[in-house]
Amino acid sequence: MTITVFFTGKTTDNYVKEGIAEYEKRIRRYLPLVIRELSPGKTPKDRYAVKLLEGKLLLKSLDKKTFVILLDERGERYTSVQFAGILEKKMMEGNKDLVFIIGGAFGVSDEVYRRADRVISLSPMTFSHQVVRILLMEQLYRALTIIHGEPYHHA
Amino acid sequence: MTITVFFTGKTTDNYVKEGIAEYEKRIRRYLPLVIRELSPGKTPKDRYAVKLLEGKLLLKSLDKKTFVILLDERGERYTSVQFAGILEKKMMEGNKDLVFIIGGAFGVSDEVYRRADRVISLSPMTFSHQVVRILLMEQLYRALTIIHGEPYHHA
Repeated sequence: MTITVFFTGKTTDNYVKEGIAEYEKRIRRYLPLVIRELSPGKTPKDRYAVKLLEGKLLLKSLDKKTFVILLDERGERYTSVQFAGILEKKMMEGNKDLVFIIGGAFGVSDEVYRRADRVISLSPMTFSHQVVRILLMEQLYRALTIIHGEPYHHA
Repeated sequence: MTITVFFTGKTTDNYVKEGIAEYEKRIRRYLPLVIRELSPGKTPKDRYAVKLLEGKLLLKSLDKKTFVILLDERGERYTSVQFAGILEKKMMEGNKDLVFIIGGAFGVSDEVYRRADRVISLSPMTFSHQVVRILLMEQLYRALTIIHGEPYHHA
């Protein structure tokens, strides 16, 4: 199974880039990982127009059959072990691709929300869409170590 | 009010150091911030012994009257706005000091847990005690922008 992670907007902060790179390396020990940063060339001033534009770009990049997990505050919350269970199930079912989406500064458009097969919230707290990138990467790595019974995760 | 943040164990990863430094700078626009990394010189092999040793170091560093907030998975969960409310209340009450504690790789000892006046969980998921440092710093900065009515936080 290949995991593709879509980030909306560029990764601006250097520490976020480094954090992503660190977990990217670790995740690739387990499976192929593709990271795609989607940025609309022009950014409208209105936040709804931004979401709409980013949403169109995202939807255009998604294969119709791919299982899509959106990270969004309105989503359901899981422990790391439950999250690993979701990943493992997708592997067992023989999915070739699994997609994760992190929205931009203002979240995602309704169209993207509706396209998602599952919506997961990492926390009731709001974190910057930059910091959330590190969180997702760490959690994917953690899930893979849990699935493989390796000692990174202390329950 | 001065906020003191205790990290148990050194900050090892460079990207975590940079992330902390970024928010440290931003938080200091609002109030004095002290970051203390507590590391026992020797580390016992047994995880309970590690927690005990780290806990003793922590407790020795805390003033008896200081309000202490521990970050721990067993804690209560709040939205960013609620978290900002907790901080604001402490300021309004005229507290001179507020302490936050992040435990080590194995969490904190029972003694530290009992000393905490409030226990807060950032997420039902487990994140590395390194990554959690960035999360706390970002959330403190976010809380201060919420308290001051500044536009960083998009609710």
